Amino acid sequence: MKSIFLAIAAIGASIMVHAQQQAIYLDVNKPIEERIESALSAMTTEEKVSLCYAQSKFSSKGVPRLGIPEIWTDDGPHGIREEVLWDEWGGAGWTNDSCTAFPALTCLSATFNPELSLLYGRSIGEEARYRNKTVLLGPGVNIYRTPLNGRNFEYLGEDPYLSSRMVVPYIQGVQSVGVAACVKHFALNNQEQWRGHINVDLSDRALHEIYLPAFKAAVQQAKVWSVMGAYNQFRGEYCCHNDLLLNKILKDDWKFDGMVVSDWGGVHNTDQAVRNGLDLEMGTYTDGLTTKGKFPYSDYYLANPFLKGIKERKYDIALLNDKARRILRLIFRTTMSANRPFGRFVSSQHSEAARKIAQEGIVLLKNEQHFFPVIAGKHKRIAVIGENASRSLVVGGGSSSLKVAYEQSPLDGLIAKYGKDHIVYSLGYASGPALYGREEPSKLNTDSLLTAAVELAKQADIVLFIGGLNKNHFQDCEGGDRQSLSLPFGQDKLIDALLKANKNTAVVLLSGNAVSMPWINKVPAIVQGWYLGSEAGNVLADVISGEVNPSGKLPFSFPKKLEDNAAHFYGKISYPGDSVNQYYKEDIMVGYRWFDTKKISPQFPFGFGLSYTSFDLGALSSDKLTYGKDEVIRIKFMVKNTGSRYGAEVAQLYVHDPVCTVPRPVKELKAFEKVFLQPGETKTVELALKAADLAFYDVDKQDWNVEAGDFILQLGNSSGNISQKLMISVK
Amino acid sequence: MKSIFLAIAAIGASIMVHAQQQAIYLDVNKPIEERIESALSAMTTEEKVSLCYAQSKFSSKGVPRLGIPEIWTDDGPHGIREEVLWDEWGGAGWTNDSCTAFPALTCLSATFNPELSLLYGRSIGEEARYRNKTVLLGPGVNIYRTPLNGRNFEYLGEDPYLSSRMVVPYIQGVQSVGVAACVKHFALNNQEQWRGHINVDLSDRALHEIYLPAFKAAVQQAKVWSVMGAYNQFRGEYCCHNDLLLNKILKDDWKFDGMVVSDWGGVHNTDQAVRNGLDLEMGTYTDGLTTKGKFPYSDYYLANPFLKGIKERKYDIALLNDKARRILRLIFRTTMSANRPFGRFVSSQHSEAARKIAQEGIVLLKNEQHFFPVIAGKHKRIAVIGENASRSLVVGGGSSSLKVAYEQSPLDGLIAKYGKDHIVYSLGYASGPALYGREEPSKLNTDSLLTAAVELAKQADIVLFIGGLNKNHFQDCEGGDRQSLSLPFGQDKLIDALLKANKNTAVVLLSGNAVSMPWINKVPAIVQGWYLGSEAGNVLADVISGEVNPSGKLPFSFPKKLEDNAAHFYGKISYPGDSVNQYYKEDIMVGYRWFDTKKISPQFPFGFGLSYTSFDLGALSSDKLTYGKDEVIRIKFMVKNTGSRYGAEVAQLYVHDPVCTVPRPVKELKAFEKVFLQPGETKTVELALKAADLAFYDVDKQDWNVEAGDFILQLGNSSGNISQKLMISVK
Repeated sequence: MKSIFLAIAAIGASIMVHAQQQAIYLDVNKPIEERIESALSAMTTEEKVSLCYAQSKFSSKGVPRLGIPEIWTDDGPHGIREEVLWDEWGGAGWTNDSCTAFPALTCLSATFNPELSLLYGRSIGEEARYRNKTVLLGPGVNIYRTPLNGRNFEYLGEDPYLSSRMVVPYIQGVQSVGVAACVKHFALNNQEQWRGHINVDLSDRALHEIYLPAFKAAVQQAKVWSVMGAYNQFRGEYCCHNDLLLNKILKDDWKFDGMVVSDWGGVHNTDQAVRNGLDLEMGTYTDGLTTKGKFPYSDYYLANPFLKGIKERKYDIALLNDKARRILRLIFRTTMSANRPFGRFVSSQHSEAARKIAQEGIVLLKNEQHFFPVIAGKHKRIAVIGENASRSLVVGGGSSSLKVAYEQSPLDGLIAKYGKDHIVYSLGYASGPALYGREEPSKLNTDSLLTAAVELAKQADIVLFIGGLNKNHFQDCEGGDRQSLSLPFGQDKLIDALLKANKNTAVVLLSGNAVSMPWINKVPAIVQGWYLGSEAGNVLADVISGEVNPSGKLPFSFPKKLEDNAAHFYGKISYPGDSVNQYYKEDIMVGYRWFDTKKISPQFPFGFGLSYTSFDLGALSSDKLTYGKDEVIRIKFMVKNTGSRYGAEVAQLYVHDPVCTVPRPVKELKAFEKVFLQPGETKTVELALKAADLAFYDVDKQDWNVEAGDFILQLGNSSGNISQKLMISVK
Repeated sequence: MKSIFLAIAAIGASIMVHAQQQAIYLDVNKPIEERIESALSAMTTEEKVSLCYAQSKFSSKGVPRLGIPEIWTDDGPHGIREEVLWDEWGGAGWTNDSCTAFPALTCLSATFNPELSLLYGRSIGEEARYRNKTVLLGPGVNIYRTPLNGRNFEYLGEDPYLSSRMVVPYIQGVQSVGVAACVKHFALNNQEQWRGHINVDLSDRALHEIYLPAFKAAVQQAKVWSVMGAYNQFRGEYCCHNDLLLNKILKDDWKFDGMVVSDWGGVHNTDQAVRNGLDLEMGTYTDGLTTKGKFPYSDYYLANPFLKGIKERKYDIALLNDKARRILRLIFRTTMSANRPFGRFVSSQHSEAARKIAQEGIVLLKNEQHFFPVIAGKHKRIAVIGENASRSLVVGGGSSSLKVAYEQSPLDGLIAKYGKDHIVYSLGYASGPALYGREEPSKLNTDSLLTAAVELAKQADIVLFIGGLNKNHFQDCEGGDRQSLSLPFGQDKLIDALLKANKNTAVVLLSGNAVSMPWINKVPAIVQGWYLGSEAGNVLADVISGEVNPSGKLPFSFPKKLEDNAAHFYGKISYPGDSVNQYYKEDIMVGYRWFDTKKISPQFPFGFGLSYTSFDLGALSSDKLTYGKDEVIRIKFMVKNTGSRYGAEVAQLYVHDPVCTVPRPVKELKAFEKVFLQPGETKTVELALKAADLAFYDVDKQDWNVEAGDFILQLGNSSGNISQKLMISVK
């Protein structure tokens, strides 16, 4: 029997071959591009297509036959989301996936400290790696255009430069442990209302100057390995398969060589998904949605319809190979890379990182008569009022909802700091539970909660009201926008009542968005505390007690009223659109660019934040008066701690081009530095920016353009407080 | 504020440190023992204890804080079990976990080909690795003591030498891809009835000569990384915490440096679990069992009770450190090892391996008038009868039940081989569905099934009856023993009826156990086909059609009746015991040792199997007449293929010590070689065995003993067919 003889010989040979050599793609020491070609040449058309769509809620196929691993993605930007069921959003009931909650990204941005961004990225990357995730679905860098956007808390604020500076080290940190970051949502997903279909348009200038820079920095500086498309449409095409955004800008102009993944359910059309730059389709709902366990992933736009198109030669195989290469490239950069560290999970280092970031992110907004710090032992009875003092602020909010190893509440933190004999607590108001997308349950009797809180306030030396927003639907939550700028759940009325009962009432706001403050002139002190993660209570107590001197700066402007905000100035077509279309009529005038150019005074300006000490920014000087367009502008100034406590100041350099063929904002942030100073200490700060950084996006040239002429450099400690100006010229 | 300054400095430093150096235990290039000490020194007592018990059905904790990964175990010996829910046995509903089913281990053993064992181990190891499993819960090497044992199909047969030879390369194959094998069940789990508590006793000699050798080979030759304790008791202590078995024999005498894991729920006592050699406790049922999602793993014997004992200094910390070291050693050998391949899953290589192993494992038991092979095209109408021709034989059976990528049934294989126009099929009999531990549902009308089959048989040229056992409870299935040696579901009656209808009826048995054959003299041909896995249909068709020449040999004896079997000869105290105790009264006389020594003729002897060709074993010679006790005995003989087809013969060398101070069996297998020969081809075979291999276990010396004197070497192609004898002496 020749057949059996050959079979035996073949087995013998394969044992030998197996032991002695391996395919190039399996060799972690070979260059990635060689490995990609090796793997690709071993794959069938079906296997290539199978890389391009989900197999479960969060995973996609590898090539099992060839030993190429699956891709496991996971939310989210602030902590590693729990394991969910294969085909459902519900938790899988594992007990090993309670993570460290890091502060929300608004808080990170408020640190104005890129080193902490690196620490953040590395720490959360380590948690993702330990949980065997291939792709961390973050960070988000959509621009804070309106305070109503339910998802602002996940992003880095209103300024493209600040976002860019902060996002780059975050990504580098995540990717340093062999986990792919996934910068999102590309692009223009600046509101949650109608996010699934709203068609956004805006000027090319606003697109390039305001909404794209952080993505570009992620691609070109941080070398991010994946990008997530947005839900909305841009100029008539869904962003997950948008020729201009994905093919032209991201892949052609920026030379992005990584993988584009759709937002979950963000794909709508096979033809566009194939041709317009999408690589991996996730979360598409199909007709099988209601049949438990029977999601026909094979019906996804990039699944069988794509395969059919390839087989019928409707689609060039090159389109498929390009997607497969990009997905393989991500796998070789992560799971199949040479030296992949092991990560770690819920370690003291991560708690420390979360605490440090939160400590530097908290912003002191008002502090009359040195209300803060509240020194331990000074007051006999501190009344803590407000639901946010005791409720979870990591649960809810949508995809960033977390199951955490621990979350110290502000109340617990304050009790630990001041002693339980000195803290009394009353809820004051009540919202519903943090259930995403559900209606709030019937409220507790608001009046009785208020009355009880007021009684407590009357008997206290001081009152710390701890409120703000939460992660309920229509608050800081994915899937819907806020309905107004006001504090919800009757908090304004409660604050008024507390102030009447006890004028020594300070307000601590935990939120990811600006709120209106009708009581602002009556409260002596305000702290903007963000969503602080696992260490929330410790950190708030650190700052309130003065053990930590606050040094955070607002990453977005607080308007006095909604209509003052640029996005709301032009009416519904600008925000939220007419349910079909939307046009960003404020153009480039977003955030402080709008307030300062239009001379509208915000409640608190971008970059603003107080300290328990005081600083002086000394005279500003540049190394030259006139610069060529390719030259670097080097500027220098002194920062002095003029107070009596150690602290940090963020020196901010804004630029204005007073004469230009296009309107320029009176301020554009182009550099900043956080300076740590002992009392009385002075440091010299040197900043460098390229003359090219002074450019505007020239719509006619479809490129950046620096016009020769004078530029005004403005140094301050917020966009609203410029203490030094200097004129230079570009020739 | 000194505190914040120090904090900032510390963060800065930790970023630096992090990037520049790492702990020794994280360095994959450092020696494992150094890494173990490095990790151990960084761990708290609580963390060490947390390594020692389950966190879910199949996983146990790592040290998340330190980046030490979890351990994920998985059944089983024949394929990678599907993902189950965290706290329940039910499948998790994933769609990426349908594996390749390899033939059951009895089939592997029947190949008598250790190279295939290596191929098996490497292939299944690759599947485990791709699915990110740390430990493969197999192979099983419990000795086939009685044909009633429901789990025999998972083991390697009745002979300690054959089991040892086959288990070593299996383990080496698994572990070559960075997955730990876990040899089981240590020890004396030779029946399923009362396995959870039965107290087994036997002579030290039987223990060491029959029941331990395969484990010893796994430890000392294959260097297995983990061992699983058995459910039963041995001399009054549960095997999962048995001082003699685990401390004395396994760890002290054999120098096992790996991890001992309990069988699931096999732990009963903290004190013994701590002191008697268990390292990792899995599957213990606690009171929380009924509360979904609330299994108090922390109540496990090696969990909080262990921690408490350590803290109260009841247990020496050295006991904990030893367990932690062994568990860490396993982690460093697998998940955290330097060059861990990526594995592969459901590849053509694995199908090929499964097919090759099955091809060589099928045993031709009877073949009068060259019934087989059934050449394609010779018969117009082949009637295939029997449920096993069409039912799944990979589902059921207990922990080895599989969710497979595919399973080709015998019927499909035969149709593919002979063409659908030439095959007719009738069920003939019906069992219940393959549900573990459930009662069979009400049977279909047995008579009508029989009648229909007989009608079909009458109209056919030949009949292939494909029956045997299946994976239902009380068949070849974990958790219970068979109730008799007979074929179940009325098959004997059916076979008789088929033979009456058509004398050209051959019997193909798919089973992992021997069955009685009251119809043996009436059937012209019998094939023993085992559980063949995914490729079952292809392989049976290969052998039946003659494309493959069968070369398998029985790895256990087939008795004519149950009472002929040694374990059953001495009544209930020997098997199954009195429900409390059991004594192996047959002592070392297990399997062919019993039949041949007692001169009881088996139905088919151990090592027996026919071929489509014929072989001659030529004269046996040794290199010397007399050997020292430390010398190697080299023997030589010719094997010739005297028939007209390519094929393979297994030359088997049995030893007898005719004069000894203790009774010796008349045959003990000490060497074998599978020889592949073209028609007419002759090969010289050389076998080497140590004089020490002729030893018996001397109970007085508590050691192995070779008594000087004559030994008879017997060469044959089965234990029942010795064609050459040679006398040598040991001095």
